[in-house]
Amino acid sequence: MNIRMVLSVLGRVLCIEAVLMLLPMTAGLCYGESPVPFLITILITALAGMALLLMKPKSGEMYAKEGFLCVGLSWITLSLFGALPFVFSGDIPRYTDAFFETVSGFTTTGASVLSDAEALSRGCMFWRLFTHWIGGMGVLVFIMAVLPMSGEHSMHIMRAEVPGPVVGKLVPRARKTSMILYSIYLGLTVLQTILLLCGGMGFYDALLHAFATAGTGGFSTRGLSVGAFDSAYIDIVICVFMLLFSINFNLYFLILLGKVKAALKSEELWWYIGVVVFAGVTIALNIAEAYGGFVNAMRYSFFQVASIISTTGFSTADFNLWPEYSRWLLVSLMFIGGCAGGTGGGMKVSRLLIMLKSALGEMVRLIRPHQVTRVTMDGRRLEDSTVRCASAFGLLYMLIVIAGTLLISLDGHDVLTNFTALIACISNVGPGLGLVGPMGNYDIFSDFSKWLMSVCMLIGRLEIYPILMLVNPALWKKR
Amino acid sequence: MNIRMVLSVLGRVLCIEAVLMLLPMTAGLCYGESPVPFLITILITALAGMALLLMKPKSGEMYAKEGFLCVGLSWITLSLFGALPFVFSGDIPRYTDAFFETVSGFTTTGASVLSDAEALSRGCMFWRLFTHWIGGMGVLVFIMAVLPMSGEHSMHIMRAEVPGPVVGKLVPRARKTSMILYSIYLGLTVLQTILLLCGGMGFYDALLHAFATAGTGGFSTRGLSVGAFDSAYIDIVICVFMLLFSINFNLYFLILLGKVKAALKSEELWWYIGVVVFAGVTIALNIAEAYGGFVNAMRYSFFQVASIISTTGFSTADFNLWPEYSRWLLVSLMFIGGCAGGTGGGMKVSRLLIMLKSALGEMVRLIRPHQVTRVTMDGRRLEDSTVRCASAFGLLYMLIVIAGTLLISLDGHDVLTNFTALIACISNVGPGLGLVGPMGNYDIFSDFSKWLMSVCMLIGRLEIYPILMLVNPALWKKR
Repeated sequence: MNIRMVLSVLGRVLCIEAVLMLLPMTAGLCYGESPVPFLITILITALAGMALLLMKPKSGEMYAKEGFLCVGLSWITLSLFGALPFVFSGDIPRYTDAFFETVSGFTTTGASVLSDAEALSRGCMFWRLFTHWIGGMGVLVFIMAVLPMSGEHSMHIMRAEVPGPVVGKLVPRARKTSMILYSIYLGLTVLQTILLLCGGMGFYDALLHAFATAGTGGFSTRGLSVGAFDSAYIDIVICVFMLLFSINFNLYFLILLGKVKAALKSEELWWYIGVVVFAGVTIALNIAEAYGGFVNAMRYSFFQVASIISTTGFSTADFNLWPEYSRWLLVSLMFIGGCAGGTGGGMKVSRLLIMLKSALGEMVRLIRPHQVTRVTMDGRRLEDSTVRCASAFGLLYMLIVIAGTLLISLDGHDVLTNFTALIACISNVGPGLGLVGPMGNYDIFSDFSKWLMSVCMLIGRLEIYPILMLVNPALWKKR
Repeated sequence: MNIRMVLSVLGRVLCIEAVLMLLPMTAGLCYGESPVPFLITILITALAGMALLLMKPKSGEMYAKEGFLCVGLSWITLSLFGALPFVFSGDIPRYTDAFFETVSGFTTTGASVLSDAEALSRGCMFWRLFTHWIGGMGVLVFIMAVLPMSGEHSMHIMRAEVPGPVVGKLVPRARKTSMILYSIYLGLTVLQTILLLCGGMGFYDALLHAFATAGTGGFSTRGLSVGAFDSAYIDIVICVFMLLFSINFNLYFLILLGKVKAALKSEELWWYIGVVVFAGVTIALNIAEAYGGFVNAMRYSFFQVASIISTTGFSTADFNLWPEYSRWLLVSLMFIGGCAGGTGGGMKVSRLLIMLKSALGEMVRLIRPHQVTRVTMDGRRLEDSTVRCASAFGLLYMLIVIAGTLLISLDGHDVLTNFTALIACISNVGPGLGLVGPMGNYDIFSDFSKWLMSVCMLIGRLEIYPILMLVNPALWKKR
């Protein structure tokens, strides 16, 4: 285990975080707020970062286990320091709450402990939504894009941080790949900001909602979320961009290269579109009566479907009050989540597809034991290890949801609230049903549950392994 | 596909069913009830059975696909005819309801559409609880035990009907194996009946409750279930026997052969005991206040834990009113279910163990890609196909729960009711939470939902494949 290498990466992460905090500080200054809370945080974070950077690694060796450790520890550290401005400014005075809110930000969950989010200072509000943007594409991918990383082994970091069962390198070098991904990410964010400005949103709101959409986060500057703007144009823009950010960014790269046909061949994309259309139409039929007809209902149903399946968590209506069919369908979409290689959470469409294909293959094999069945995706055969890994992921996901629900149910809230809160956290959605519906918040839970759910959000965002690896004895044992 | 062979097996199943119906008819006669409803059913069933037996198979060939087809179709046919006495006697006049109740009986689920079960005629009540006993060990296994089956391929039937990821032949011949299993089953049932008689239960109640316990079914002659007897002795006897019937019968065979040490080596057994003790103790702590102290609470908690994890579904208390922790833990136990090779339902402890071991193996492999990890059980290495099959099972199980819940939620009941009703059906438990709690019943659902849940009960009892295979194109295609 090259622990010095890991610590030096952590040092970089903290330094970058200190630099990134200059933005919310500046935003606060523009609105005449005191820069002190951010200044103190930046100082502490930068000092801690530089102290870690002093640990020069003896070698640039970086294998899978260092990759997992880097990613797991980076995200925890990032959140531990990222929570400080909320505490120092007095906006969220309790550290547990501030940590929950920060983890919820970085993991692009969007679950909030605030009953009145609009009361936040401008600087903290900026930081709160900016964490979505930072967490969406991954902070280590960002570091790889802007700082030269030693060795060619940095692919291990990418594999551990970018969502999805397989990570396709766009170009041979990992650094180049990260730069391309980040450019697309930035480009789409700018485009969305402009489109929101055209819809009459103020610059501050437009930029911050673009941040929250890009990371498929779901925090909003308004207590009523996107519903506060009450504009069909804004609903449509955000709906489309939630979907755009939750599909595989490799497709955009292919499109940029002019390989549109190759991009449209993605099986995952078509399944994703299929699920969105099915859910959007059937929910619209289910709620048509309450929204004055099918066409108007479509506006609300498609927005909510896009918001939940992309695991953003914005709302334009209180879907907790919708009929049972719609409510349960939305819960099911939380499990599915976005596509691999996008910024969405959940189990990912491609992973479910792999598991489903493998299960159907087994059904054939049960009656024809000697037939060789292979799981293929986009015409290519998948490695057996990819299939096994997807199944393992599915099981661990369900076990964490069931066990986590059990632990938070000690707080005494109803089953529906607990179960959907846990799914909303691990799938990085944000709102659930019952007391944690779009009009509720997570302040109802005990401190123990808040820490537990913070861990679940990290487990979900990093796709289980980087966090579970921290307690895996095999990681710490010498070979 | 040797379709004539399948039909001739169906013929035998119907003839056996006709013979078995003589028992409830006699029971009814003893209480002075009219034998006509049963006589008509027996006539119809026997005629249909004999018509099918006329189709002499050209060959005794029986492969995996014939095995699945035999089992899937037998259970459906059995239920279709088994529902008739309820309709003819007027006890359950609507066929949909009668079919639901019969499937619930044969699959040992114990979910009822009756709001007042005690109003049933004695004959129908006997038949209702007797179906649990028939379904518990499997009707085809029974046929194999009493009638000579052609060829050595009948193992395919056993594999498809006996619960669990692997079926261990006790002795080389399938017929001998079935006879041993049925003898143990019968012996334990007789023993329980005697013990219940010692506790002051009447013969009719004792025998019928022994039937329902043996099959881990859960129907009761009383509206308040086992709670109606209000006896600690009876609670303990039934609690112990629910657990005994839900563990692997192979262990009893080993014990009979004097290989007690080998029997106690079963990993699955110890995990099962561990889960039961953990759940029993923590639920007792959780409900202690309401039951006047920890010790008295243990009586109710252990009974309910044994009842739910063995997927029987008896109740001595309305656990729907228990605190959230206890309620959710019971729901989690529904997923787990009993051990392989017992009469319990659910996903089975051993299958979950296999999946968990495989997932942990993947976690090691992620950081040491070249390490060979093997899933072992009781010290023996499992085939890769067994592991893959368990994973496929887990995925299909969850998908059916989620999709089934979505479909029945069209009836408009709350999420908790729908979700737990579906789990209680597919895991063959019976009662769920909310409106389908131990004091509720399934009559609240629409006909569509009742048929859907009947299919889910069959899917659960036959462990998915024999029912799904019926719509698997690979089964019907010629090679």
